[in-house]
Amino acid sequence: MQRIYSSSLQKINQISQKCWKSTSTRVELTQVRYPKLKRGNYSVISDKHISTFEKIIPGRVLTSATDDLESFNTDWLRTARGNSSVVLKPKSTEEVSEILKFCNQERLAVCPQGGNTGLVAGSVPVFDEVILNLSLMRKIESIDTASGVIVCEAGCILEELDNVLREKDLMMPLDLGAKGSCQIGGNVSTNAGGLRLLRYGSMHANTLGLIAVKADGTVVDALNCLKKDNTGYALHHLFVGSEGTLGVVTKVAIQCPRVPQAVSLMFLGLSDFASVMETTQRAKGFLGEILSSCELMDLECADAVVQNMKLKLPLERMPFYMLLETSGSNAAHDEEKLNAFLEAVMNQGLVMDGTVITEPSRLKAVWHLRECIAEALLRDGYVYKYDVTLPAQKFYDLVPFFNDKLKEAGALRCCAFGHLGDGNVHFNVTSTEFSYKLLGLIEPSIYEWTSKHRGSISAEHGIGLKKRDFLKFSKTAEAIEMMRDIKQVMDPNGILNPYKVLPAI
Amino acid sequence: MQRIYSSSLQKINQISQKCWKSTSTRVELTQVRYPKLKRGNYSVISDKHISTFEKIIPGRVLTSATDDLESFNTDWLRTARGNSSVVLKPKSTEEVSEILKFCNQERLAVCPQGGNTGLVAGSVPVFDEVILNLSLMRKIESIDTASGVIVCEAGCILEELDNVLREKDLMMPLDLGAKGSCQIGGNVSTNAGGLRLLRYGSMHANTLGLIAVKADGTVVDALNCLKKDNTGYALHHLFVGSEGTLGVVTKVAIQCPRVPQAVSLMFLGLSDFASVMETTQRAKGFLGEILSSCELMDLECADAVVQNMKLKLPLERMPFYMLLETSGSNAAHDEEKLNAFLEAVMNQGLVMDGTVITEPSRLKAVWHLRECIAEALLRDGYVYKYDVTLPAQKFYDLVPFFNDKLKEAGALRCCAFGHLGDGNVHFNVTSTEFSYKLLGLIEPSIYEWTSKHRGSISAEHGIGLKKRDFLKFSKTAEAIEMMRDIKQVMDPNGILNPYKVLPAI
Repeated sequence: MQRIYSSSLQKINQISQKCWKSTSTRVELTQVRYPKLKRGNYSVISDKHISTFEKIIPGRVLTSATDDLESFNTDWLRTARGNSSVVLKPKSTEEVSEILKFCNQERLAVCPQGGNTGLVAGSVPVFDEVILNLSLMRKIESIDTASGVIVCEAGCILEELDNVLREKDLMMPLDLGAKGSCQIGGNVSTNAGGLRLLRYGSMHANTLGLIAVKADGTVVDALNCLKKDNTGYALHHLFVGSEGTLGVVTKVAIQCPRVPQAVSLMFLGLSDFASVMETTQRAKGFLGEILSSCELMDLECADAVVQNMKLKLPLERMPFYMLLETSGSNAAHDEEKLNAFLEAVMNQGLVMDGTVITEPSRLKAVWHLRECIAEALLRDGYVYKYDVTLPAQKFYDLVPFFNDKLKEAGALRCCAFGHLGDGNVHFNVTSTEFSYKLLGLIEPSIYEWTSKHRGSISAEHGIGLKKRDFLKFSKTAEAIEMMRDIKQVMDPNGILNPYKVLPAI
Repeated sequence: MQRIYSSSLQKINQISQKCWKSTSTRVELTQVRYPKLKRGNYSVISDKHISTFEKIIPGRVLTSATDDLESFNTDWLRTARGNSSVVLKPKSTEEVSEILKFCNQERLAVCPQGGNTGLVAGSVPVFDEVILNLSLMRKIESIDTASGVIVCEAGCILEELDNVLREKDLMMPLDLGAKGSCQIGGNVSTNAGGLRLLRYGSMHANTLGLIAVKADGTVVDALNCLKKDNTGYALHHLFVGSEGTLGVVTKVAIQCPRVPQAVSLMFLGLSDFASVMETTQRAKGFLGEILSSCELMDLECADAVVQNMKLKLPLERMPFYMLLETSGSNAAHDEEKLNAFLEAVMNQGLVMDGTVITEPSRLKAVWHLRECIAEALLRDGYVYKYDVTLPAQKFYDLVPFFNDKLKEAGALRCCAFGHLGDGNVHFNVTSTEFSYKLLGLIEPSIYEWTSKHRGSISAEHGIGLKKRDFLKFSKTAEAIEMMRDIKQVMDPNGILNPYKVLPAI
């Protein structure tokens, strides 16, 4: 492994910058790259359709005749490109309702789109679906400082919400690398996870209610704003994580925690994965209720950040790095707990080196190292991205399982980072450009391996287009059948985000 | 208010014990008490059906011909009684599947039943539904001490699970008064709340996966055991809180927290509700991440506990009592935070008197005062029980709104207790026996009032039979329509727990 790694490291140094620059070239069309995909029996957009859209949302209909729709058609990872000729930008739930009602009548397929930061090609069209872009729905309706509940429209950007909340001593319960452009409607629709799920829970735990528009234009107002509401079926949970295939989320109510009084971050260097595991268990014990994040990055990820993003690590090169964050209500107490933890792991020889950061700007800078891994890897050229949950003891096994054969087949990096505290590993492989050979070496092997070890083939990224045919590795036939039944009753014409989530029949 | 209260206090003292003893008399049949209810077009149980059941679960078919089915037909509150002539006790998911498949073919209505501790008449039949009692499904399949995940059958009793987990330094995330008899399948199916939801979240947050049997006998295995699994629709969330109307939950995977190193309980006496509110806010600020429960009981509740349960309060009689629990990883730190909190609220005159308990057996005894309120009130004779979420500032307003007119109409007590930290109030009215007049004075007025103040008409008890016709006060027409669509696709013949959750058409 070491030999192969060293040689590919040199290769990366030579080519990574060149490749990143070349990504301004067009991404291959999804329908070309995946020739087995067949377009559904939907109508083709016509001038008549466009003029109706213009009546519903005047001045907010973008068409390929007059606008560049490239960025709406291409996913952030630059791995998928649709061929839509129209982007609609509604400003209200009522407009979304009118649009969907019309599309349903006309059998026009629709691709709902938030910040388009998804990693499974779920938020871009596959063929010529109408793009329903929610970015103009950015109103914050209310913030209740007593209960900590924010009500806002789906297009609000996560980081902007967090900034507004912090002025009121509240914060968003989720935080992820894409926070600067991802939208809360997308976060809810994809059940986004992120860096602090360990402490503040998933979108299922934090979304109190929402408004969603069904395929036929029916507005389902399930905008509960109370922490406890046990009145009938958990409708909003059905929209959380359904990736726009059951309805378009237009408004959400999110339970937000208070901003902690004290936040500390540890950046630790470790020599092997056994030490990482033991340190994680120790952290859960010593830091208990104040532990707010427990993250891993391996050396190849760290190298990508240093090389491609021109950033500097706070420690020497080491096989593994951990980021541990604590958030508490008393800085002195937290410090004492941190010191007891550090003493224990250092004395036991689990941690080789480490640094504790409490100064806010430094804290942000060190967090940035972890947050920009995805972008750093993308700058290699092409990224094969996998997001699985595995039992703790298997967390890092994908790297040794795949490394040698992928490097021999031309992979630049084969690395892992992710959320140790939740068992969620991001296994990433990079190459200068897309290669069917590499893809074939990884898939479906990685899903079979994950299924064999009782993991989940998607921990937080969702299914989208890329994983739909592998859903069977995490869901039983009866469960998939139940999904189809629900899809059928919610969207009988199948116009909402087709080709996504549900496997091809 | 005071005058009426004093006179009814005397009355209670005279009659409460007499009434409790008299509850061995039969409860009026639900179909008699609610004459507007019409039996659905289901088959009537026959000897042929019984003999098929005997083949599926030999020796575990109870019939009214040979067994006393009274306790299976009557709810814990003694407010509803069904007239079922058969109770089935399956021991496995496969048996549940065979039973439901047969019932579906034969159009036999089925009432799934756990510990039968529900408070909305959801777990007893309304007419002659077959009772599907899960109490023999009590196997614990696995406990993963590293991840904290327990997998067990639906019939496991909550307290027994907690006891087993505590030997492994884990605990159940939920705790409620009925823990000694309620079953985890029922907890999941009703999205049970309880005393520590504030800290550990709802069943939606803690149920990782489950196995449920659909009306036609299809086994939906959605038994994910991982903290993060984002593969397709959130199927298990659909069963959580659907009260057995969409499927019968037979196995669950629950995320359990570690047992905290230190637990402290404060029992505080306060003179008015404004002080209660302010103390709650102070507790959230000072105690932050270690606050694990924040409960209220008013004086009438406390008196019921003293009079009917022969228990002693740790403080003098005061208008309001609060129970605040902290759970942390460092006893010294927690004590320091507690002291700072107490100093602040005492200095400000918010709290009149208080006691801090850390000794485990005392802690249990003081918790018992809170936990037995429901039983204490029941011993008055009959309880009108309401469980609503309200905005913080309205939390106690139901008592002054209803007290005088209900007392004048014969109510013994009109009181409130509940989960301050979650905005969930239990408003209770007692009388010696059921009275249409009192019921008419409370309903639908209480639901209209709750809806007007943007509350939820069921915070944690669910809808069951009792609240189904009031669902509209918390759910929009479109949301109820979506519920009906889902019910239709999951259970086209409507055999599962009919007359519950969904409003009568």
